[in-house]
Amino acid sequence: MALLTRITGPRDLDRLSPEQLDQLAAEIRTFLVDAVSKTGGHLGPNLGVVELTIALHRVFDSPKDRVLFDTGHQSYVHKLLTGRQDFSRLKMKGGLSGYPARAESEHDVIENSHASTVLGWADGLAKANEVLKKDDHVVAVIGDGALTGGMAWEALNNIAAAKDRPLVIVVNDNERSYAPTIGGLANHLATLRTTDGYERFLARGKDILERTPVVGRPLYETLHGAKKGLKDFIAPQGMFEDLGLKYVGPIDGHDIEALESALARAKRFGGPVIVHCLTEKGRGYQPALQDEADRFHAVGKIHPDTGLPIASSGVDWTSVFGEEMVKLGKERGDIVAITAAMLQPVGLDKFAKAFPDRVYDVGIAEQHGAVSAAGLATGGLHPVFAVYATFLNRAFDQVLMDVALHKCGVTFVLDRAGVTGTDGASHNGMWDMSILQCVPSLRIAAPRDADQVRAQLREAVQVEDAPTVVRFSKGAVGPAVKAVGKVGGMDVLRNAGTDRPDVLLVSVGALAPMCLEIAELLEAQGISTTVVDPRWVKPVDEALAPLAEQHRVVVTVEDNSRAGGVGSAIAQALRDAGVDVPLRDFGIPPRFLDHASRKEVMAEIGLTAPDIARQVTGLVSRLDGRFESEAVEPVRD
Amino acid sequence: MALLTRITGPRDLDRLSPEQLDQLAAEIRTFLVDAVSKTGGHLGPNLGVVELTIALHRVFDSPKDRVLFDTGHQSYVHKLLTGRQDFSRLKMKGGLSGYPARAESEHDVIENSHASTVLGWADGLAKANEVLKKDDHVVAVIGDGALTGGMAWEALNNIAAAKDRPLVIVVNDNERSYAPTIGGLANHLATLRTTDGYERFLARGKDILERTPVVGRPLYETLHGAKKGLKDFIAPQGMFEDLGLKYVGPIDGHDIEALESALARAKRFGGPVIVHCLTEKGRGYQPALQDEADRFHAVGKIHPDTGLPIASSGVDWTSVFGEEMVKLGKERGDIVAITAAMLQPVGLDKFAKAFPDRVYDVGIAEQHGAVSAAGLATGGLHPVFAVYATFLNRAFDQVLMDVALHKCGVTFVLDRAGVTGTDGASHNGMWDMSILQCVPSLRIAAPRDADQVRAQLREAVQVEDAPTVVRFSKGAVGPAVKAVGKVGGMDVLRNAGTDRPDVLLVSVGALAPMCLEIAELLEAQGISTTVVDPRWVKPVDEALAPLAEQHRVVVTVEDNSRAGGVGSAIAQALRDAGVDVPLRDFGIPPRFLDHASRKEVMAEIGLTAPDIARQVTGLVSRLDGRFESEAVEPVRD
Repeated sequence: MALLTRITGPRDLDRLSPEQLDQLAAEIRTFLVDAVSKTGGHLGPNLGVVELTIALHRVFDSPKDRVLFDTGHQSYVHKLLTGRQDFSRLKMKGGLSGYPARAESEHDVIENSHASTVLGWADGLAKANEVLKKDDHVVAVIGDGALTGGMAWEALNNIAAAKDRPLVIVVNDNERSYAPTIGGLANHLATLRTTDGYERFLARGKDILERTPVVGRPLYETLHGAKKGLKDFIAPQGMFEDLGLKYVGPIDGHDIEALESALARAKRFGGPVIVHCLTEKGRGYQPALQDEADRFHAVGKIHPDTGLPIASSGVDWTSVFGEEMVKLGKERGDIVAITAAMLQPVGLDKFAKAFPDRVYDVGIAEQHGAVSAAGLATGGLHPVFAVYATFLNRAFDQVLMDVALHKCGVTFVLDRAGVTGTDGASHNGMWDMSILQCVPSLRIAAPRDADQVRAQLREAVQVEDAPTVVRFSKGAVGPAVKAVGKVGGMDVLRNAGTDRPDVLLVSVGALAPMCLEIAELLEAQGISTTVVDPRWVKPVDEALAPLAEQHRVVVTVEDNSRAGGVGSAIAQALRDAGVDVPLRDFGIPPRFLDHASRKEVMAEIGLTAPDIARQVTGLVSRLDGRFESEAVEPVRD
Repeated sequence: MALLTRITGPRDLDRLSPEQLDQLAAEIRTFLVDAVSKTGGHLGPNLGVVELTIALHRVFDSPKDRVLFDTGHQSYVHKLLTGRQDFSRLKMKGGLSGYPARAESEHDVIENSHASTVLGWADGLAKANEVLKKDDHVVAVIGDGALTGGMAWEALNNIAAAKDRPLVIVVNDNERSYAPTIGGLANHLATLRTTDGYERFLARGKDILERTPVVGRPLYETLHGAKKGLKDFIAPQGMFEDLGLKYVGPIDGHDIEALESALARAKRFGGPVIVHCLTEKGRGYQPALQDEADRFHAVGKIHPDTGLPIASSGVDWTSVFGEEMVKLGKERGDIVAITAAMLQPVGLDKFAKAFPDRVYDVGIAEQHGAVSAAGLATGGLHPVFAVYATFLNRAFDQVLMDVALHKCGVTFVLDRAGVTGTDGASHNGMWDMSILQCVPSLRIAAPRDADQVRAQLREAVQVEDAPTVVRFSKGAVGPAVKAVGKVGGMDVLRNAGTDRPDVLLVSVGALAPMCLEIAELLEAQGISTTVVDPRWVKPVDEALAPLAEQHRVVVTVEDNSRAGGVGSAIAQALRDAGVDVPLRDFGIPPRFLDHASRKEVMAEIGLTAPDIARQVTGLVSRLDGRFESEAVEPVRD
């Protein structure tokens, strides 16, 4: 690491020779495999952008120029070149974020990890430069996968409208998002990419252009001033040029000199320009290059030589869902599956293998996933759209207006719901049970264990006139939590064992074991506690209000934002039933959560059995001397 | 109306001669101007699609074939041809909906009016046909404006991926959405559209293609089999073909024969195909054609000959905002404005005239509006994005992840918030105050009158580290409602006049006059009532809990879904403060509302002063004999 350790900022790159740059690239790859195999993280994407990131920082002057990364999981090299080389606590509490983070560096701008936003950001920043008459540059790096997202299109359409507003778009084309990029755009990129097509184009382009004089010179030379031969020839390339965007490429994304030349030309161009770079995901790391399923996109701790995982994590929620989907697929020919470029991560790979004609990968396009699901349902099928909880936010309007308003039987399976932890603020699935509350007729299931995932998925796909949601956590599923009784549609997990119990504890989803622990702690304080799992948390079970009325206090515990979550909905249902029993709702405070382990995050926000038991104990004691007005210690912050 | 009145369904069109079809088109135009001038409605778009709709219903066999209209406001002709000719109560309670409505006809499929969804629906329906092995056709009509929406792109990318899944896309290109369509796509369409460009393409296309042999025949003829000359020549047309979509056009959208020929060929094609039709918005109606500002897109009651409005409606919320924006723009050079293709309807036309370089029309692209606003704010400006409340749903993820997470000072001005009425379920702005509750640090202002719109807009644009929202109603703004005092940041609108008052009534936004009326009715029952307007409803004012504690009951009234709305947030804030005063929250029930006047809708859902006063009176009487457990009559249904 002789060179890497001497790079303290982008300008240190300026003095390196071409040979040294290649050596630096090699050092960075060694560093990444070594560091990420110890901590886990996004390995494949970063190995693919080593040379590109070096070239970007040599050509542009960050932070004055804005170097923007879409999605952000390919920013490790950027971190290394901007003064951040301690990866020992990557994604851990107090360590480096797995994404750009403005708290870490002035070189970071966009820190969320939802895809396809970078062109919109770039458009805004470029407009601001124009209004404020700054001549700083804006350069946005976006993957070919993220171009399938509608936001990218909306932005391209706007960017193309201003012919003289400078903006450099780097398409990092590795032919994959998570899964291989699909759709018409992917096919178009492939056409631009293949040597055959490219050369054919060249031949054709030259032929046409040489015969088209512009201001006295052949168009071919005038427009493009090709200097370096094939590699960075500027030519009118299909749809990008149709939109009015100048196109440079394709460039070998591992040739620093070619990259610099193309980027420098794009920087000088004075208008919007696309630089199309071909990169290889996992470059230089054999285990990644040999893996068809792209399991090195993001890894846990691995053995650096073999790439084999160091620890296996037991059965996870995702695979329980994935296996039940295969069974359902066999039983019902009308069940089809949808993923937004995450077939394997959401557990649909087995379904896809069993029923290849009944699975749709729509690209990074959650809106389309939801709307096309409405069409599929109206056409007579039952679609199951499996998606990370946090990404459903992208499709809120479509869930509401296309699926719910049209009474379509569509099942949304929300993986990685609740606190996910190490991926930071934008990956926590803490919004779904809030924003979906106002969607008429939509039903939400929060299964507490593997049996309930299977059972509730089956209940969900039987609903044919309304959207259903099944949401579960990330990672290993806990042991089965048996019901000891039933009230309405709710499972009783624990009876208080008295006629006039103190506390009704409403447990949501995977928090059941914690709620049982809370009940134990309360019982130890002499506070009798009933624990119920409503299973379906929307609508609120009609049996809840009468049950609540038999208790002195109602407590709800959920792994979702407190703002407008299940607790709020239950409180409203009780009010509507005229049941004014005091209620306390515990959940995630309405703020963005820093990266840390799930356990650390839960502890930090007070979502632990001892914290909650302590607060409930305090409330019950105060009720014993009622109308003493000292406030309960609020959970929110 | 000799012909029109004899059309009871699409198949009645089959027996008409070309001359009769032209006559029918003329009759339909006369009918539309006559009918819509009496009721108000979307006039311009429907005048533009008369021939197109006739041709669609002659070539396709609805409802077996699915004829889908994007946005839906151009479905009047479709209604006339599918057995619905009583337009006397258009958009009124019990009358025809202004959009397709499945309750009206089996010929209607998509009934929401949020743009750019139709291609996603069509993709889903086509996939369902494939799985179920049906050979029914799917044809989707989308405007050039709606193509600027990201969902259209996501859908095109998916549709293009399946080369042999039949689907006909009709691009209804009138060069406008509401405002003229903008951006790179618009420019590209213009290139396709202009005879000059078209002919140049032809010449060039022929030149290249004739020299490219495919299976022994010139590519030019093989692929395209041009039969009818220029008008419906099938040719590889720029970006659509780049994506792998066959392109037919451009077709004269007022030539029924040409349309039928193109549509029939597209129907036979056996894969995804785009039919590009050029239409004239407002066709055949001079006042519409002569109006640059496109005021005939949607009209109120007008004089049919002159097009002049019959009644003027006083000062509306929109223009109060629009005028204050101009003042703010003069005072602060860093304020810029964003609209999603609705410059005039959201009141930004005056700002645009005064500051043409500081206004951005992003197309029908709310996601881009929000993300580019984050970029503008990060770049040093303060963007004000004015948008209909219901359309902000499209940008929820961007408000959360791009604006709020990045602490950007962006102001969202939500017009048409609350019950809007006659445009039906999808135009009511009843979701914003629910879904925005969980967005950390975001602040929501609900001004009650014109003075407050001006004041709160000014307060909003001073917040530079968080998103702010200013939401107001549709239509005429009511008289000023003066504050009689202040508690914390809240305006007291009425003092109860006693030390231990009964009811604290929290009024949200434009409902202030109604809340004062409720207070009068309660007072008449001997129930003392304080009325406060929090002004900023998120976060909940810290002075609210102590004030609530001085009352026996808290009542909240809002023009938003009850589910997770302001009432819920206030209830939670009171719980967090340990204030367990009974609360009742009145708002819009969580269901989709049928079209009717605002007044009728409000009456139907019980959001009137007498209804609320009656329920509060009941609650207070019950509290007088506390723990009598009869439930309060629930508002929800």
